[in-house]
Amino acid sequence: MLERARTLDAGDPLARYRERFDLPEGVVYLDGNSLGALPSATPQRLAEVMRGEWGEGLIRSWNSADWIDLPHRVGAKIAPLIGASAGEVIACDSTSVNLFKLIAAALALQKQRGHPGRKTILSEPGNFPTDLYMIEGLERQGLALRRLAARDTMADAIDDDVALLMLTHVHYKTGAIFDMAALTAAAHAKGALVLWDLSHSGGALPVHLNSCNADFAVGCGYKYLNGGPGAPAYLFVADRLQQAVDQPLTGWMGHAAPFAFSDDYTAAPGIGRMLCGTPPILGLSALEVGVDLIAEIGVGRLYAKSQQLSEFFRQCLSELGIELELVSPTKPAHRGSQLSFRHPEGYAICQALIARGVIGDFRDPDILRFGFAPAYLRFEDMAEAARHLSEVLASDEWQREEFRDRAAVT
Amino acid sequence: MLERARTLDAGDPLARYRERFDLPEGVVYLDGNSLGALPSATPQRLAEVMRGEWGEGLIRSWNSADWIDLPHRVGAKIAPLIGASAGEVIACDSTSVNLFKLIAAALALQKQRGHPGRKTILSEPGNFPTDLYMIEGLERQGLALRRLAARDTMADAIDDDVALLMLTHVHYKTGAIFDMAALTAAAHAKGALVLWDLSHSGGALPVHLNSCNADFAVGCGYKYLNGGPGAPAYLFVADRLQQAVDQPLTGWMGHAAPFAFSDDYTAAPGIGRMLCGTPPILGLSALEVGVDLIAEIGVGRLYAKSQQLSEFFRQCLSELGIELELVSPTKPAHRGSQLSFRHPEGYAICQALIARGVIGDFRDPDILRFGFAPAYLRFEDMAEAARHLSEVLASDEWQREEFRDRAAVT
Repeated sequence: MLERARTLDAGDPLARYRERFDLPEGVVYLDGNSLGALPSATPQRLAEVMRGEWGEGLIRSWNSADWIDLPHRVGAKIAPLIGASAGEVIACDSTSVNLFKLIAAALALQKQRGHPGRKTILSEPGNFPTDLYMIEGLERQGLALRRLAARDTMADAIDDDVALLMLTHVHYKTGAIFDMAALTAAAHAKGALVLWDLSHSGGALPVHLNSCNADFAVGCGYKYLNGGPGAPAYLFVADRLQQAVDQPLTGWMGHAAPFAFSDDYTAAPGIGRMLCGTPPILGLSALEVGVDLIAEIGVGRLYAKSQQLSEFFRQCLSELGIELELVSPTKPAHRGSQLSFRHPEGYAICQALIARGVIGDFRDPDILRFGFAPAYLRFEDMAEAARHLSEVLASDEWQREEFRDRAAVT
Repeated sequence: MLERARTLDAGDPLARYRERFDLPEGVVYLDGNSLGALPSATPQRLAEVMRGEWGEGLIRSWNSADWIDLPHRVGAKIAPLIGASAGEVIACDSTSVNLFKLIAAALALQKQRGHPGRKTILSEPGNFPTDLYMIEGLERQGLALRRLAARDTMADAIDDDVALLMLTHVHYKTGAIFDMAALTAAAHAKGALVLWDLSHSGGALPVHLNSCNADFAVGCGYKYLNGGPGAPAYLFVADRLQQAVDQPLTGWMGHAAPFAFSDDYTAAPGIGRMLCGTPPILGLSALEVGVDLIAEIGVGRLYAKSQQLSEFFRQCLSELGIELELVSPTKPAHRGSQLSFRHPEGYAICQALIARGVIGDFRDPDILRFGFAPAYLRFEDMAEAARHLSEVLASDEWQREEFRDRAAVT
């Protein structure tokens, strides 16, 4: 098994990218879908930003280091990874805050179009919590109504009350992929707008926002884009909507002329109006390094390798006689870069694996989740992870008390 | 003049803190009120966070490096600088986003108290633009009404329609200080809540939120707290309001149990409910270094020195025969850590000074602004800045074409 893995690694065209990341010794990291690994170039770049741009350049760097353009520049680099054009994406705030802007923007657009009664935001139960909670935020303001429909009834649940269909493209727990083209078309046919959360898609697999005719999207900077813990997020507004779009977080950086210091807000033309406060330069600079690296490798090649990795992992499990309930789609093309299994003792098993240096994660209540970030994982890691999992399951190792105490973050 | 300055520096108890910052050679930096200088410890700390916590610790660091608590920890360190208790302050998002949360929270509180008709947010014309724009954001949602009243008529402008009085404690252009205690009392007497923007106060001068009975506050991390460009901001909610407070940016990090991954939002107890998305760890870690340093020096001593610096600067100007219209209060105790002058050619003069290494800033339309960050400025810098200003004004240097082109950021 290990032999076969090494042969696969020897023939892997992406193998050489592993050294572009700083990875701890003795760790198999299967959680790049929660926090991407550190690109080796990031500490050096951040040191330059701190010592050169901040320390030496001081306030001048807003112009001389072009800090002011950084949200646009990083957004423009993310755009081709998700099937968008340069001026349609901007890097800013958190995924949650960006969701709020875009849900509110969808409601405002429906109003502009003469449908003030369309207030329903349609999503699915079990979507990533913050997506559902941000709808609730607007519900608490009295501006939106949340409706959740099961995945297989989604298209039928779109009716004349729906302002926005808001879905996560790749499900965070199962990795299941929604049919972006079909659901976007179904929503448009009923007059609804569509917002895709690409948190588990961007940088992991090719996304085609514009060829699917998507209206809005958000995504996360710290998973497959390797921007670092709590990295700035990004958002997309289709070019055709940009002049009409109106969002309520009207901070000074979204103003057409922020340094005119006028008392009254005038939205910037284009995607810039989606900005709110002062851009976080350290975070954006780290994100840029991650995005550059992923763009250099290419999402097409990354997704191809990720499918090979996860299939090889399943094969190893099978050869080791491990039978776990797979909650991810069995066809690799139907899932993102992850495999999730259901086990009532998922938390303790996950902790026992971490103690052995195999880092996956656990998602309440019973999901053991393994992410396959192909930029830095080897087939050898798959074989090793499968072996450790089989040893943990075969022994009573995971039953130890120390593996059963829940930490603050799971 | 320079001689006198050096004598003052020799007797300055804060002089030794200058070496705790990395400052460029040959620069007199009078813009710490726009972007604070780089603490020498920051690059090393960030390198540890990147290589150790992110690179080595990976996802485990949410628990092992206590990333999950970082917004609380940094907030608790900011609290004593602004007269608040540890559990009343949290570091997160941008000042603008935090303003939105708190304006919305004030409207929700008024509703809870049986005053749904109180929708007016009262501020002053010429307040920092983002403050005014964020009110407009809620106005665009149909939830708020913006009213602006001149500074000297403010107390009289508070009536039964006012939900929230929202003012910037130290004015960004003039440095004038509002009487926090008196205006808070006046607002409370009329049933209005009060939100103080401390962007130009926090870390610059002692603030007494709790003894003034303030309800809400926000502040900036990248000015006098030296957190770096676009650093996370902070917000304050008085303890007595925390159980009732309800804000619409209900992201997963503000949930009582984010890792239960429930479909429904339940606000965390206490200040944690003001969080929205995943905390920006790089930015918060840099901010923590700046806050630690300012706390070590102490805002009382900092403000005392800042007053001495600005008075000495005025004295130098006077001795050099420079007459400029001062728009800041003449009494040092009535202003923050800055001096602002009006000059029709302010922009070009500012650029000519920057070319000489004296970095102040310009605020549209005609304000030349000098900030005195006493943690790293010397009396010698005051004498030097005054000399350069006098030379620029005496010559036609500032009339050069190169100093008249406006850059994107002023």
